[in-house]
Amino acid sequence: MSKTMLPIALSNKHIHVSQADLDVLYGSGYELSKMKDLSQPGQYACDEKVDIVGPKGTLKGVRILGPVRPDTQIEVSIADAFALGIPPVVRNSGELNDTPGLKVIGPKGEVDLEKGVIVAARHIHMHTTDGEEFGVNDKQIVSVKVNGPRGLVFDNVLVRVHPTYALEMHVDLEEGNASGIKNGDLVELIK
Amino acid sequence: MSKTMLPIALSNKHIHVSQADLDVLYGSGYELSKMKDLSQPGQYACDEKVDIVGPKGTLKGVRILGPVRPDTQIEVSIADAFALGIPPVVRNSGELNDTPGLKVIGPKGEVDLEKGVIVAARHIHMHTTDGEEFGVNDKQIVSVKVNGPRGLVFDNVLVRVHPTYALEMHVDLEEGNASGIKNGDLVELIK
Repeated sequence: MSKTMLPIALSNKHIHVSQADLDVLYGSGYELSKMKDLSQPGQYACDEKVDIVGPKGTLKGVRILGPVRPDTQIEVSIADAFALGIPPVVRNSGELNDTPGLKVIGPKGEVDLEKGVIVAARHIHMHTTDGEEFGVNDKQIVSVKVNGPRGLVFDNVLVRVHPTYALEMHVDLEEGNASGIKNGDLVELIK
Repeated sequence: MSKTMLPIALSNKHIHVSQADLDVLYGSGYELSKMKDLSQPGQYACDEKVDIVGPKGTLKGVRILGPVRPDTQIEVSIADAFALGIPPVVRNSGELNDTPGLKVIGPKGEVDLEKGVIVAARHIHMHTTDGEEFGVNDKQIVSVKVNGPRGLVFDNVLVRVHPTYALEMHVDLEEGNASGIKNGDLVELIK
């Protein structure tokens, strides 16, 4: 019988930056400073924060997650998108075509992004070994059941299997609050 | 075969007030001023707004919904509760024992509530005729399926059947955004 239970975690709004954009925001050749490791190996929260400015509003102090990536990507909730005044576009990480942009302000400069703001689609990270134990493949779509007073079943959950991933489901703050979960709660994968 | 589809709507934070509290907040004998009717017959949004103040933060301009009720009740999201610095307590409307209180500030005075702040449990309003057509009873617990990219199945949905109710499911903003719905979208009742 396959494994079914895995931990879930809530993602708050954050930004991944390219080195080119970091050079503008924090100065040429700037290196991110690790505040703490995240659950996915090699990923970390940084001391650095920026403000993001949309046509309707500003979100101040949005934390940078490291390391730097090829493309700058900002992940917000639907409520955040409304507050900024940009359309909420639900996307998988890295799929940035036809997403809205906005202005990013750092201590040394500003970047006007043409695209890159997404509402991250819920997903599960799994190590290759987990994929075998759960009996699922990379890019498989599954459902996930959450118990409790706000219990629900998330459909359309993307599974990502990779040798560098650690077992964890990621939802945004609104999905987490809507289902009444806390970081580390166990949820059930349903195929 | 029973009916299964019904409209859904998102509830933003709001406050229902008792006449006694309204007298303090807006002045003795004050009468609420209707801004617009809500979907439930006899219920309406008012022109009047108040500030609500918790130990950690304030939410300004929270709209009063009328008519006045026997007990003041404030409905917020889990994120709102964290911003206010009070525990998020998921409850059915009217079940206010052991709920947190806070300070309410109106133009003429302040009220220190000992209780009354809830995160409203998701629920369905139905007219008696709808209850027959859907084949469900007052206080029955059902599930509700939402389609789309953020599709999910809400479990633990309370059905309220009453001759004064109009057919509509109510969720809070976080539940609405987590499922990608807009006001008036059709969802499926599952028994």
